[in-house]
Amino acid sequence: MQTDSLLKQVNFIKEIDKVKYIQRKTKLFNSDRNENDAEHSWHLAMMTIVLAEHSNVPIDVLKVLKMVLIHDIVEIDAGDTFIYDTVKNHDNTDEERIAAERIFGLLPKEQAQEFIAIWEEFEAGLTNEAKFAKSMDRFEPLLQNTSNNGGTWKEFNVDYEKVYDKKKVIKEGSTSIWNYAENLINESVEKGILTKNKN
Amino acid sequence: MQTDSLLKQVNFIKEIDKVKYIQRKTKLFNSDRNENDAEHSWHLAMMTIVLAEHSNVPIDVLKVLKMVLIHDIVEIDAGDTFIYDTVKNHDNTDEERIAAERIFGLLPKEQAQEFIAIWEEFEAGLTNEAKFAKSMDRFEPLLQNTSNNGGTWKEFNVDYEKVYDKKKVIKEGSTSIWNYAENLINESVEKGILTKNKN
Repeated sequence: MQTDSLLKQVNFIKEIDKVKYIQRKTKLFNSDRNENDAEHSWHLAMMTIVLAEHSNVPIDVLKVLKMVLIHDIVEIDAGDTFIYDTVKNHDNTDEERIAAERIFGLLPKEQAQEFIAIWEEFEAGLTNEAKFAKSMDRFEPLLQNTSNNGGTWKEFNVDYEKVYDKKKVIKEGSTSIWNYAENLINESVEKGILTKNKN
Repeated sequence: MQTDSLLKQVNFIKEIDKVKYIQRKTKLFNSDRNENDAEHSWHLAMMTIVLAEHSNVPIDVLKVLKMVLIHDIVEIDAGDTFIYDTVKNHDNTDEERIAAERIFGLLPKEQAQEFIAIWEEFEAGLTNEAKFAKSMDRFEPLLQNTSNNGGTWKEFNVDYEKVYDKKKVIKEGSTSIWNYAENLINESVEKGILTKNKN
C-alpha cells in the first residue's frame, strides 16, 4: 500500500537525521571545525557531479550519487572509524552490516534491499561506479588536509607512506584526478606538512 | 585542456565548503541545533531518492538531485532568507543571480552554464523536476517543525494560514506526499503547536 510505504519512508528520513551528529576526524577547509557525515556526503555528491567527466570509464552518475549519499548512514550505529586507525579496520565490519540491515530495513522491503545492495557495492569497490565513489571519498580529505597545514596527518602522526597507500586507489576511479592528487601529496612532503617514514 | 578544467573544478569544490557555515532558521529533528545548508541539501537529496516514486509524473531523478544539491550554494554570497520573512522575498533575487554567476562561474564555462541553468530551473519551479525538488524543500522543515513542538512556527509567530500557503505547493510535486503533509499541518493545529489566525 502506498500510504504504508510513505510512513516507512518518513520514519527512515527522520532516523537518518542522526548522520548530522557523526563527527569525522577531518576538519573543514581552512578550519579547525570537524566535518560531520552529512556535510561530507553532500560534498562528495557535489564532487561527483562536478568531476564525473574525469572518470576512467563512462559511469552511471545517479548510481554513484546514491553510493556517496548513503555510504556513511551505517555509522549511525557503527560510528566513524578513522581511515588510519591501526586497531580497527575501516572497511565493512560485521557491526556495519548489522547497522545496514537495521537502518535501511526501516524502508519498504524492495527499497531496503536496493539500498543495502548499493551500500555493499560501494564497500566492495569492484564496479566502475564504486571505484569512482571511492576516489571521491579519498580525494576530499586530501584537499582538506592540505588546506589545513597537514590536518589529521599531523594530528595523528600519519606518514607519507600510509597516506600514499590509502590515496592511490583514486587512480582506479580517475587517472587524471590521481595525477593531481599525487602531486598534492608530493608537494605536501616538500612543504613539510607530511613526513616520510625515517625507518 | 583537461588539467585546466580540473584546477577550476577543485577551486569550486573548495569554495562551496562555505555552504557548511550557512545556518538555517530550522532546527534538526527533536533538537535545538540549527541545520546548516549542506546538511539540509544532503537530506533533500536522500528524500529525493527515497520518495521519487511518489512523484505525480515520472521524473529525471538525476536532474532533481542536482537541483537539491546545488539549490542553496548561492547563499554563500546572498545568505539564507527565512521563508516566512515579511520584508525580504525568499525567491530568486538579484543578489542570488549575481551569486550564481560568481560561484558557478568558477567552473569551466560549459559546466558553469549547466549549473546556472539547473539552478534557474529550480527557482522557476515550472518543470516536473523543479516541482518535485520544491516539494522536498518544503516537506523537510515541516517534518522538523512538527518534531520540535512547532519549531520556527512558534519561534517566529507563523500562523496556520501562512504555513498552509507555503506548503501547498508540495501537491504540485506529489499528491500523496501532500496528503500526508496536509494531515500533519491539521494535526499540528489540534495539538496546539500551530495556531489559526484569529482575525
